[in-house]
Amino acid sequence: MTSGFDPASRSTRVALLGFGTVGSSVARVLASQSFPGIELTHIFNRSVTRKRTSEAARLVPEAIVWTENIEDILTSGVDVLIETIGGLDPIERWLSRAIESGKSVVTANKQLIAYRGAALARLALQHRVHLRFNAAVAGGVPVIPATLQGLQGDRITRLSGIVNGTCNFILSHMEAGASYADSLQRAQAAGYAEADPSSDIDGLDACAKLCILARVVLHVELDPDRVSTQSIAPVSAIDFQYARELGSTIRQVSRAQLDGPLGKLVHARVAPMLVPLVSPIAWSHGTQNMVVTSGEFGGDVVFSGHGAGGNPTAVAIVSDLLAVAQNSTSVTLPTEPREVTGEFIAPHYLRFIVDDKPGIVSAIAGALAEVGANIDSILQRPGHPKHRLPFVVTTEPCLTSTITSAVSSIAAMDCMLEPPLDLQMLTVEDKAED
Amino acid sequence: MTSGFDPASRSTRVALLGFGTVGSSVARVLASQSFPGIELTHIFNRSVTRKRTSEAARLVPEAIVWTENIEDILTSGVDVLIETIGGLDPIERWLSRAIESGKSVVTANKQLIAYRGAALARLALQHRVHLRFNAAVAGGVPVIPATLQGLQGDRITRLSGIVNGTCNFILSHMEAGASYADSLQRAQAAGYAEADPSSDIDGLDACAKLCILARVVLHVELDPDRVSTQSIAPVSAIDFQYARELGSTIRQVSRAQLDGPLGKLVHARVAPMLVPLVSPIAWSHGTQNMVVTSGEFGGDVVFSGHGAGGNPTAVAIVSDLLAVAQNSTSVTLPTEPREVTGEFIAPHYLRFIVDDKPGIVSAIAGALAEVGANIDSILQRPGHPKHRLPFVVTTEPCLTSTITSAVSSIAAMDCMLEPPLDLQMLTVEDKAED
Repeated sequence: MTSGFDPASRSTRVALLGFGTVGSSVARVLASQSFPGIELTHIFNRSVTRKRTSEAARLVPEAIVWTENIEDILTSGVDVLIETIGGLDPIERWLSRAIESGKSVVTANKQLIAYRGAALARLALQHRVHLRFNAAVAGGVPVIPATLQGLQGDRITRLSGIVNGTCNFILSHMEAGASYADSLQRAQAAGYAEADPSSDIDGLDACAKLCILARVVLHVELDPDRVSTQSIAPVSAIDFQYARELGSTIRQVSRAQLDGPLGKLVHARVAPMLVPLVSPIAWSHGTQNMVVTSGEFGGDVVFSGHGAGGNPTAVAIVSDLLAVAQNSTSVTLPTEPREVTGEFIAPHYLRFIVDDKPGIVSAIAGALAEVGANIDSILQRPGHPKHRLPFVVTTEPCLTSTITSAVSSIAAMDCMLEPPLDLQMLTVEDKAED
Repeated sequence: MTSGFDPASRSTRVALLGFGTVGSSVARVLASQSFPGIELTHIFNRSVTRKRTSEAARLVPEAIVWTENIEDILTSGVDVLIETIGGLDPIERWLSRAIESGKSVVTANKQLIAYRGAALARLALQHRVHLRFNAAVAGGVPVIPATLQGLQGDRITRLSGIVNGTCNFILSHMEAGASYADSLQRAQAAGYAEADPSSDIDGLDACAKLCILARVVLHVELDPDRVSTQSIAPVSAIDFQYARELGSTIRQVSRAQLDGPLGKLVHARVAPMLVPLVSPIAWSHGTQNMVVTSGEFGGDVVFSGHGAGGNPTAVAIVSDLLAVAQNSTSVTLPTEPREVTGEFIAPHYLRFIVDDKPGIVSAIAGALAEVGANIDSILQRPGHPKHRLPFVVTTEPCLTSTITSAVSSIAAMDCMLEPPLDLQMLTVEDKAED
């Protein structure tokens, strides 16, 4: 039943685990307006002495308990744990114990939810407490609650999205003309990319988020370690020039599709792709996140906003907290474990850097013909030296593995100066049937 | 608590009021997959004999009760009424009686919710039943559940959107070069516009939706009859040409803003506006709907999708039904009634059609100077006859009423062949603070 806060009921006591960027933003959002019935009572962090004197610490109630000992939280009378620390160990143990002792959990921890979310959800159901994780995917973009409450009547068969702000920042800077190295450096300087950016660049961060979305949106349980990922690192400036000629740009796209070319498998992949400029996926710039769901009846629905950052993530967390405090339930349809494959049927963009000699095009065409892949176009931009010539072949739609085998035989040719770049091309199809 | 369907509990019996486009789509979505615990038991419609033989009627259970008598529904044991008929009378009476007898209500009725939603919500709270209306705004775009469950932690201060598909269809066809008359005719031929399109064109339909969104998103209760609306009918092809020169297009924008230039008033307006091409609002084409919310902490969040049509609307309705069946609650913060004003501070686009004579520009500039409005640019496209010359003045940001008074004195000038067209220009400002 839709109901307001009941002032007569006991307030909801909340412990905050972690007082870094996200944790302190949660304190800021909670302090910004009156949320009747919500009481922040504990903060757990290492180096409490230092944290207590931080700017953000002034926003929390004077009477709050600061602690470096997780037992103080787990044995306390708090109703809800907000977890903003991240990682699997020891967080999984701590949160499991919290759930077992009747505490609800709100978390922004994508690794935890991607790998252990199903088990934790079962534990929460068993102990009749809440487990909410809207902040774990696309921070400030409420795609999880929107899907859980607003699209459950549809049968969503496909989702694609931009869920890693770092890659989007780098690729949209490259779209504007910057080099990969400069763009990465700029992302690091702006605090968007880690010193070791591989989790972002190679698609592992996006993969965890894709698996969470697949569970909520497609009702399938995927093993993140079995989802194919492709790094954005080999994408270079010349690829953006060719992409533009093809009416496209390049984005790191995370996508999953039910019942595609290989029947009951779930097709899932995180990879840089050519994206048509008319697609909503191409609209995302900077650190923006975007998710597009495709439903059998409702067609495409687009969600976009700030995917990361303390404040947008804190909004997702506090919204979850309010839902827990009001004992709000989510609609849940059963989820099933499914095998996953990286195979899609898609047109491909193949970029070669060659030492140009007669017969190269015919050799490449032959290798593609051998696997049954049809060439759609051959593009060669002027102004490059013969001894280091970039050129591009696009293919008609075919299976990922088909192209992979052709590309590996092409890669072995003497004239190839670099490993060929193989990107799938996103096709736009919105099938709202009406 | 997050919980699945409980197969042991009695199923939720559902009556469908209305079996037109939306009603029959609801039957289609319900028949498309297994929704355990949901049982469609009654259909109310006029001319039941005809409806029973329709294609869609084959999708409903054989044992269903068809009736033309609303008393059969109101006195039945159904748990949820789905209302797809529309209008205030007699629907308000019927649904009030249903609520009073302990039945939950899911409705797509925007007039009802805009004018009587607050009263009905109180009634539902009192009788401890659900009232859900996600389908009443932007059909397949789950902006209401997303906001209720995912953004309640933020303080949203502004919303803008495209919530009337008919106007968007017409204006995006005009953007592609068609005339207003042709575009309207095409919208009518495609079934998007009524024979009398005034409710769409003049902004009344959008206004009802804006008031519903303002209640859910901004927590303010507005009187739809007091919200300013401006028709899209005077917008002509030449305006799209000038808009393009200004890096913009033209859309019917519905927007509301808290605490703007006039303090505690809510600024709300439905009107054609110049929209920068870089704004998400400009992305909407055809009958697409789009809503952008601007939060103090989370910044801008964009929702987009199919705003109307039987199937997308049915998805919203069935999702609401599932939420009711699972006794899912929404987070609700208190709503307050607020006075509304059409005043915004915005740059303005003024298009004049004049019989050109010396001194006209100086007279117009004088009229603007008199009210303190600064000119930003004067645009005149070549190739138009002197005796019927269109030209455009854009102003720096100023209050709506300031420009209105200047325009009315300009309109009185002898050289004006048509009433000047005064459009506000949407400015892009995403203030995610982090």
